[in-house]
Amino acid sequence: MKKVYILCFTFFIMFNAKLEARLWRDIVNTVSSIIEEAPFDVKEQGMYMRAMDPSHISMLDIEIPKEMFEEYSIDKEMFLGVNMDEMKKIIYRAKPTDVLIINAEESRIYLTFVGDSKRKFGLPLIDVLEKRTKLPEIPFTATIKLSSEIFQDGIKDASVVADHITFEARKDAFYIRAQGDTSDIETVNEKDSLIEYDLKEEARATFNLSYLSDISKSIYGEMTIKLGTDVPLMLEFEIDKAKVKFILAPRVERE
Amino acid sequence: MKKVYILCFTFFIMFNAKLEARLWRDIVNTVSSIIEEAPFDVKEQGMYMRAMDPSHISMLDIEIPKEMFEEYSIDKEMFLGVNMDEMKKIIYRAKPTDVLIINAEESRIYLTFVGDSKRKFGLPLIDVLEKRTKLPEIPFTATIKLSSEIFQDGIKDASVVADHITFEARKDAFYIRAQGDTSDIETVNEKDSLIEYDLKEEARATFNLSYLSDISKSIYGEMTIKLGTDVPLMLEFEIDKAKVKFILAPRVERE
Amino acid sequence: MKKVYILCFTFFIMFNAKLEARLWRDIVNTVSSIIEEAPFDVKEQGMYMRAMDPSHISMLDIEIPKEMFEEYSIDKEMFLGVNMDEMKKIIYRAKPTDVLIINAEESRIYLTFVGDSKRKFGLPLIDVLEKRTKLPEIPFTATIKLSSEIFQDGIKDASVVADHITFEARKDAFYIRAQGDTSDIETVNEKDSLIEYDLKEEARATFNLSYLSDISKSIYGEMTIKLGTDVPLMLEFEIDKAKVKFILAPRVERE
Repeated sequence: MKKVYILCFTFFIMFNAKLEARLWRDIVNTVSSIIEEAPFDVKEQGMYMRAMDPSHISMLDIEIPKEMFEEYSIDKEMFLGVNMDEMKKIIYRAKPTDVLIINAEESRIYLTFVGDSKRKFGLPLIDVLEKRTKLPEIPFTATIKLSSEIFQDGIKDASVVADHITFEARKDAFYIRAQGDTSDIETVNEKDSLIEYDLKEEARATFNLSYLSDISKSIYGEMTIKLGTDVPLMLEFEIDKAKVKFILAPRVERE
Repeated sequence: MKKVYILCFTFFIMFNAKLEARLWRDIVNTVSSIIEEAPFDVKEQGMYMRAMDPSHISMLDIEIPKEMFEEYSIDKEMFLGVNMDEMKKIIYRAKPTDVLIINAEESRIYLTFVGDSKRKFGLPLIDVLEKRTKLPEIPFTATIKLSSEIFQDGIKDASVVADHITFEARKDAFYIRAQGDTSDIETVNEKDSLIEYDLKEEARATFNLSYLSDISKSIYGEMTIKLGTDVPLMLEFEIDKAKVKFILAPRVERE
Repeated sequence: MKKVYILCFTFFIMFNAKLEARLWRDIVNTVSSIIEEAPFDVKEQGMYMRAMDPSHISMLDIEIPKEMFEEYSIDKEMFLGVNMDEMKKIIYRAKPTDVLIINAEESRIYLTFVGDSKRKFGLPLIDVLEKRTKLPEIPFTATIKLSSEIFQDGIKDASVVADHITFEARKDAFYIRAQGDTSDIETVNEKDSLIEYDLKEEARATFNLSYLSDISKSIYGEMTIKLGTDVPLMLEFEIDKAKVKFILAPRVERE
């Protein structure tokens, strides 16, 4: 009978969490904008996700502390590999006031929306080969805290004229520029229009727009841009109590 | 001169009806979601439409009683064959407060929108070969009256994971389930969350989603689902004073 | 040194204008609906644009008087050739309350949106070969001033059944008609439902719908239709203080 007992055991719930469905939707939106197959590390203190996009140009790092959940309990630490496209389609079926219960067994994760009714979606856990990589150390020389609206406008303005964007932190102001084949755009953000502006050294780098455009849709309120000259950029922002870091490699001009 | 007289006579109006344009739009939406060429029987007591969809998997039956119209007069009983795509494009040109006058001659039907202006659309009557078929007798064992919202949520939830849906009426509750290649969904609707729940015998059947998805967009307020095991399902709902029945064949698993 | 001096001079700003960005957006929408490469004549008294669409079936004429601008100054009269697609993409980046500053140098035009931030878009001036043509003299016999809503409804109604539209000014009323392969539409606008109705002689002409549909989206409030029998039609309307004339050749039936 031992074999049967073991088989049963694998179907015990090993992770159980409860939070507002809309908060999880914001997390899913952010992850799915960059990552196709996401490795969620479920630990005592919360959930962690760090991965590179399929082309390895950008990295996303999210810490979702236990405190963001109404309830949070784990039987053992788990590693949940999730197809973000499927998760996204499901989370969009939540109603605005639904509470979400997340469970996981050995091979399956369940999202249960609890509102007027109880609707339980199951989806398979997948193998995500990628090992949890370290966050790279980048020699940033400028840290700019600003309203996400300025950043998003810059992204959208640049998208009208080009497929890349240049950020430049100078003594007096933070510049957002794009130069297309024919049209160009320059936005000047004076120091005073920024929340914080910490400049060790002037910084300037150019990036492909598509990644920034995707991630920018997840950012509300305040955000931080860390910039150096021709090094990756880091965006930091929060989704409720979750901390999000996004790193993007610069565009290198080929000679 | 007799020949001329007869020719003239064929252009006399033989059917004249008046109602709020938005009510006719709801009827047209419902019919056009299933039926391409609709046979409307115009009788003393009202209009009747019964037809199968082009693939003969579903049947739609509508009774529009005289009382739904502000005015309703017929010179003789008529059979109006209408291309629902054309009718739909026209009815969407109505303004929210327009009154609609429907006339028909021998070979043409007219929709006149009366509001600030008078706009008269004419479209040809077409031959609809189909004979008025009988409503089939189906051995239903469960009758479930519920808010259309529960039904529509079930359809949409299922659509996220699969292309078919299973309804199951058990003693305790009405289950909506779908099983896709990887993901699945189960909604449990306790007896108490339903308006009426009349169960002679447990019932269970599976249906293609596309027809249900199309018809579900026409349903507001309360509706009735009649269910048996592996037999067709019947949906009943009302559009103002019109009574709508929709029958759908179950999906049969091939071995 | 003279050569260098001339080169420098070419980069001086030679035209500077300021107005609400939303007003310029309305102008751009109207022009771009008909004209791909627009020749703007910048003169002391204002800006002028007159051009034919690429297929030479219609002509658009716009006068934007100096008074429509908050500020308006020119160093010398200029001819600005603008790709309207690019201009349109840029003007849509304006925020509802932005003020727009338009500058031009010898070879480039700049749109600067001034709101919470200052965002400066540059786009190249292009060669527009077309000479400023005269407005043709057309023997109109009917002048109809009406609410643009009646006109727009007529256009949309006709689009449902056909790809052309017939306007007919008769003693009693202004008729809008369209006859498709199967369906047809007739709208009767009694004299009393029109703002002004000046009829020298009954008029009737048929037009392709696509041009009318494009231009109709730019018209708000009152407008004037000038009509003759089988001659071009002229629409006149205003965008703030700017005066717009649109001329369209009639559809000639081939035998």
